[in-house]
Amino acid sequence: MSKPPISSRALETPPSPIRKLAHLAQAAKAKGVKVYHLNIGQPDIASPPEFYQGIKAFNKPTLAYEDSSGNLNLRRAWANFLNRSSNLSLDAEDLLITTGASEGLIFIFMVTCDPGDEVIVFDPTYANYMGFAAITGVRLKPLMCQAEQGFALPDLKQIRRRISAKTRAILLCNPNNPSGTVYQRKELEGLIALCNEYRLFLVVDETYREFVYDGLKPLSALEIAPGNQRLIIIDSLSKRFSLCGARIGCVVTKNKDVIAFSLNLAQARLAAPTIEQEAAAFLLPAVSRQSIEDVRLEYQKRRDVLVRSLQAIPGVAAVIPQGAFYCMARLPVKDAEAFAAFMLRDFSLNGETTFIAPAGGFYVSHDRGASEARLAFVLDSSQIEQAVSVLAAGLREYK
Amino acid sequence: MSKPPISSRALETPPSPIRKLAHLAQAAKAKGVKVYHLNIGQPDIASPPEFYQGIKAFNKPTLAYEDSSGNLNLRRAWANFLNRSSNLSLDAEDLLITTGASEGLIFIFMVTCDPGDEVIVFDPTYANYMGFAAITGVRLKPLMCQAEQGFALPDLKQIRRRISAKTRAILLCNPNNPSGTVYQRKELEGLIALCNEYRLFLVVDETYREFVYDGLKPLSALEIAPGNQRLIIIDSLSKRFSLCGARIGCVVTKNKDVIAFSLNLAQARLAAPTIEQEAAAFLLPAVSRQSIEDVRLEYQKRRDVLVRSLQAIPGVAAVIPQGAFYCMARLPVKDAEAFAAFMLRDFSLNGETTFIAPAGGFYVSHDRGASEARLAFVLDSSQIEQAVSVLAAGLREYK
Repeated sequence: MSKPPISSRALETPPSPIRKLAHLAQAAKAKGVKVYHLNIGQPDIASPPEFYQGIKAFNKPTLAYEDSSGNLNLRRAWANFLNRSSNLSLDAEDLLITTGASEGLIFIFMVTCDPGDEVIVFDPTYANYMGFAAITGVRLKPLMCQAEQGFALPDLKQIRRRISAKTRAILLCNPNNPSGTVYQRKELEGLIALCNEYRLFLVVDETYREFVYDGLKPLSALEIAPGNQRLIIIDSLSKRFSLCGARIGCVVTKNKDVIAFSLNLAQARLAAPTIEQEAAAFLLPAVSRQSIEDVRLEYQKRRDVLVRSLQAIPGVAAVIPQGAFYCMARLPVKDAEAFAAFMLRDFSLNGETTFIAPAGGFYVSHDRGASEARLAFVLDSSQIEQAVSVLAAGLREYK
Repeated sequence: MSKPPISSRALETPPSPIRKLAHLAQAAKAKGVKVYHLNIGQPDIASPPEFYQGIKAFNKPTLAYEDSSGNLNLRRAWANFLNRSSNLSLDAEDLLITTGASEGLIFIFMVTCDPGDEVIVFDPTYANYMGFAAITGVRLKPLMCQAEQGFALPDLKQIRRRISAKTRAILLCNPNNPSGTVYQRKELEGLIALCNEYRLFLVVDETYREFVYDGLKPLSALEIAPGNQRLIIIDSLSKRFSLCGARIGCVVTKNKDVIAFSLNLAQARLAAPTIEQEAAAFLLPAVSRQSIEDVRLEYQKRRDVLVRSLQAIPGVAAVIPQGAFYCMARLPVKDAEAFAAFMLRDFSLNGETTFIAPAGGFYVSHDRGASEARLAFVLDSSQIEQAVSVLAAGLREYK
């Protein structure tokens, strides 16, 4: 008997470029090969003890649903955390807790766009935005950023030309995944003005907000336009606190309609996980600024090691990232995906290999980034050095 | 400056009928009124100690992402749990772990349907199916079940007439939320034959599988058609183990395409929460059959108390549920939603009131169920008795 058909939208949802080669990594590990994971933004830095204290402190006999809008103490604590760090005046009502930033972005795509509507993004872009767009039937309209210009935003004239009658939002990841580019006040002001002019939402994914280097200061778009009804911030505990597995993110906006209609979607999925929300409500008021600063300094050190190691490889061109913990590099290969697969399937050096994310999947525009890779500096400096030297050996053998 | 528009799909996503009056309940509590929650399937039964042991045992320094397909130990343990209880031969590869059954259903709507495609459901139906349909652009095509017939399925001829060129699946909740009806082997066999004939998916939400009363035995649709490529089961820990706040569900199917394409969607949201998956992997092999049986017996007792108490109220007609933990009752009011709001806003008896879910929101068909309510028997027997006597007093005052 023939099977029922799979939907077109499922067939068109791209597998994650970060995870699609994961089965090859598993096979390599099964053969006893040590795999350095530079492919995924999964830090090795310890999660804060305050969070685990919050987990252990949970002692309710029944593990009940949390409110669909999120734990009230957590929303208050998160609002205060943002108020303190970015000099804002947010209330709990301006936040909706989501199951990771991922869910927050899916809600926002759904609330701001009908199927067929358009969101302007900047290439290269966080690959999962393409997954969210496929899921929600939204068309991403990419504008190219150039490696040679440090992936700076195109000028406003070019962005303006990309706006159509179908455009509903501009989506920016700042600091940027995958490029590590940090967009500053001037660029944000330009985008806000454009969104005001064209009645668009500006959605800024600030998952990596604190991770900026070389003397830059963290800057939330909310600081520039605190009461703007067009501005929606996506935030997350995943990277800032090495809590990827907690799945706690949030939507922050002064637009009460966006919160209210996102809440209807949130009610359909009932709630985000309860225990992690309680633990996060315990963490945020307790965590010290210094501990975040220590993590930031550690990433800056790792970045220096990664960039220096990459630049020492003949034919490799790395763009120095000023934020987040990713580095885009052009490799001396035609097809970085084939090379990444080669590294996992066919290569090892003294029982070790390196897993990189081919960058093609980070470009909405087809046929871009084929020879580029994204490398996450989420391992300690000595492991990064070793991972890059294994990568260099792989490149020599691949040619 | 005018705000950017909210999408049509967000405007059309219904608020949960279970949660939409929650603000009135909060206001009542703020006034010091005790609220009996019969509106929501949030049991007061303690979660299993094995689960909390699993939570406390988590001791990895970094709370990392879990695999997108779910923790492998959990998938193995869940397959074994189903194999033991339903005499199946499932492997870990037949399961995908989801953030609650809710996410599993959203994935399955997306994988089986394109926007505009149709899924046949039976009215009254679990209200959040309407939310998932709105989110995914799927059209629910309801067939009416009659309270007078214990909400039995319509005969196959009627179901057959509802199938169109756009139909992709039939969705059944068994045991049923909100009616408590249990569909047996014969009905399941009929639906499977129909799905075979018309090349449709049969999606069975078995969240309440073990909760059947009056000598009925739990029956998974997988037992009837173990290798059927059309059959997709949605399962959840939420109700069986009083773990609503854990947000752990799963998709079970022998159809490898459904698993593979659901995994692409799952990769976009990265992973379900890590700690709960480890705890669930610890729970499932350790939990005793007797503890599940004890919970089942407790619900049966509560059902008896609820039905007896409701039947004692003049003008109330309750349909005796044989499964799950909900009871549909016709109230002697024209508009059960207005009455439910009255109970929260305008009524209390000795400082207490009762929160019921108006049933209109459980009908896809408009203008049905206006005088009905869904009552969850998730409180202990003495509280149920008290809640119903408060309800009866409210009905007297309302007239």
